[in-house]
Amino acid sequence: MNQHRLKKLTNALTESGLDALVLNPSPSLLYATGLHFHLMERPVIGIFGADGRVGLVLPELETAKLNGLDIDAFPYGENPATWTSVFKKAFDAFDLNGKRIGVEPLAMRILEYRYLQASAPHATFPDATETIASLRMRKDTDEIANMRKAVEIAQNALEATLPKVKIGVSEKEIAAELVMQLIQHGSMSPFPFQPIVSAGPNSANPHATPTERKLQAGDLLVIDYGAMVNDYVSDITRTFAIGEIDDEYRKIHEITQAANAAGRAAGKPGLPAGVVDIAARKVIDDAGYGAYFTHRTGHGLGMEGHEAPYMRADNQRILEEGMAYTVEPGIYLPNRNGVRVEDDMIITKDGAESLTTLPREIRVLG
Amino acid sequence: MNQHRLKKLTNALTESGLDALVLNPSPSLLYATGLHFHLMERPVIGIFGADGRVGLVLPELETAKLNGLDIDAFPYGENPATWTSVFKKAFDAFDLNGKRIGVEPLAMRILEYRYLQASAPHATFPDATETIASLRMRKDTDEIANMRKAVEIAQNALEATLPKVKIGVSEKEIAAELVMQLIQHGSMSPFPFQPIVSAGPNSANPHATPTERKLQAGDLLVIDYGAMVNDYVSDITRTFAIGEIDDEYRKIHEITQAANAAGRAAGKPGLPAGVVDIAARKVIDDAGYGAYFTHRTGHGLGMEGHEAPYMRADNQRILEEGMAYTVEPGIYLPNRNGVRVEDDMIITKDGAESLTTLPREIRVLG
Repeated sequence: MNQHRLKKLTNALTESGLDALVLNPSPSLLYATGLHFHLMERPVIGIFGADGRVGLVLPELETAKLNGLDIDAFPYGENPATWTSVFKKAFDAFDLNGKRIGVEPLAMRILEYRYLQASAPHATFPDATETIASLRMRKDTDEIANMRKAVEIAQNALEATLPKVKIGVSEKEIAAELVMQLIQHGSMSPFPFQPIVSAGPNSANPHATPTERKLQAGDLLVIDYGAMVNDYVSDITRTFAIGEIDDEYRKIHEITQAANAAGRAAGKPGLPAGVVDIAARKVIDDAGYGAYFTHRTGHGLGMEGHEAPYMRADNQRILEEGMAYTVEPGIYLPNRNGVRVEDDMIITKDGAESLTTLPREIRVLG
Repeated sequence: MNQHRLKKLTNALTESGLDALVLNPSPSLLYATGLHFHLMERPVIGIFGADGRVGLVLPELETAKLNGLDIDAFPYGENPATWTSVFKKAFDAFDLNGKRIGVEPLAMRILEYRYLQASAPHATFPDATETIASLRMRKDTDEIANMRKAVEIAQNALEATLPKVKIGVSEKEIAAELVMQLIQHGSMSPFPFQPIVSAGPNSANPHATPTERKLQAGDLLVIDYGAMVNDYVSDITRTFAIGEIDDEYRKIHEITQAANAAGRAAGKPGLPAGVVDIAARKVIDDAGYGAYFTHRTGHGLGMEGHEAPYMRADNQRILEEGMAYTVEPGIYLPNRNGVRVEDDMIITKDGAESLTTLPREIRVLG
């Protein structure tokens, strides 16, 4: 366990008026303990007291992971009928009944929540998302180095994939090649998300899943993907032209690229996160395509593909040095084609740096 | 959407006394709709009425997925402040307040649950795990074909990896090679779980994460991994000897292999799932190593790496044709070495078939 992080977490709990924090297997549990647990049918929870004590309720077969760590273990056997009493024992040992126990609604399941409620029937379970996000958002040097590496690997993997992109090759085939190149170039697994490879009308769906559809002349091709290094991720999108494309498609790419540039230039310590969205969106609005930019401009990035801060016009959160996020405007013409250009940014002392350095101009392939 | 599945689901809801089922992104939602959604900070829920109606609350940018499907869409925009009213609208449209609404505690998060509670304050949310499991457990011909393919790919990928397994190679290097071979042999991603490659003392931890530790002569090497084909998975473990090993290690492998054989032979339609665990465990108990077999004998397999039926002695669930599960006894000598041998089984008309055909004998590598 990283004692420095644990100390910061303990302080943050006290500042938030929480008596404890309870986490199930999630990036936050990994951040707080350095331990990997599977999210599965056997519940695992970490208990973090505002006094600095740490406990884990976990299956007996996982206890080997705790060797040498200053963690109170509450192991249980294979029969679910016995688990309630083990949770109760742990909650009693931390004296949690009647207390304010922070939880992460984005990660904790009803499975764990019902054990919590049964073990501390008079406790309240306020949302601790902000408390944890306030720690995880500001990346330290090691975290940024991992993200930089995750970007570098992803960029090299995409360049190695492009020679296979040709008319007649399917979205699925390109996605499989990209996955292989990501691993060969040093990405660890799991990836932050499964690559999106969407062409032609599928590119108008921002969250498409690769299909058997084969590339055709005139398609736009959107590739949105990322790598993972030591639990930190990258998330990049580039859009390509397959042969000769419609003039309007070329135009929406130019507009999106300009919006991406405006979004990248807008981030700065001391400004609200919303400025990034406002800057990128203005370019697309002014060009008359505002109705076709149907999502926020970006999201935070780190141990998760989506995390705070979120780049929405109404987000008043103040940007600080070390915060990491994407800038990914897009224009999607329904039932026709779509474009997205996405970079990974870090807030620096006096501005924002793009970790991504791949060319942003539309490249013609096929 | 698969209308036959939807009909079975509707019937199962009525039989369980549920007015509706609400699912968030999970294998069950995929099973019921055929649609892939990301589990993320934007909540997505599917509403399945006992009357056969289907609704989806989802981000606007995901609605393209519903083209042509008979699903009532309730899309919301990027500002979370507006989401509560959209959930409320959906719940009102399905007249859910005061009703019995089944949920999946293993998949649904507090995030979605709090929207449910706010949208239907007088509803109850009983655990529908069993209702859904009763459908998903019995695999049809297409599902079994996908699992068979996932086993075949995994077997070929392991054989292609073994030539790289040598003294001096690290667990992480073997895991990376195996991941690459899985993709090259046709596995789709994500994998059901990240491969476990654990050697020497690490092999005594059933859920180890690959480390930088390099293989040494005398190690046992446990490789536990799986492939995915069309959303169906395999899950296989084999244990290898690196050079000359301790006599006791050879002995615990023989015992584990015999336990695996007994577990494989025990499954049959009409018998409780517990017989598989009892048969495998008896072999290890009789050999005097019962204290070192610290987990159940197996778990169900299908769209998830762990699902019903669970192979525990106390599980009274009756096995039926088409049920799929693992048989994976192990012996773990603390701070020394461990063994596990795992196969993927399907209940047939009059017994159980192993989809896995890799040699089970200990192979000496390095």
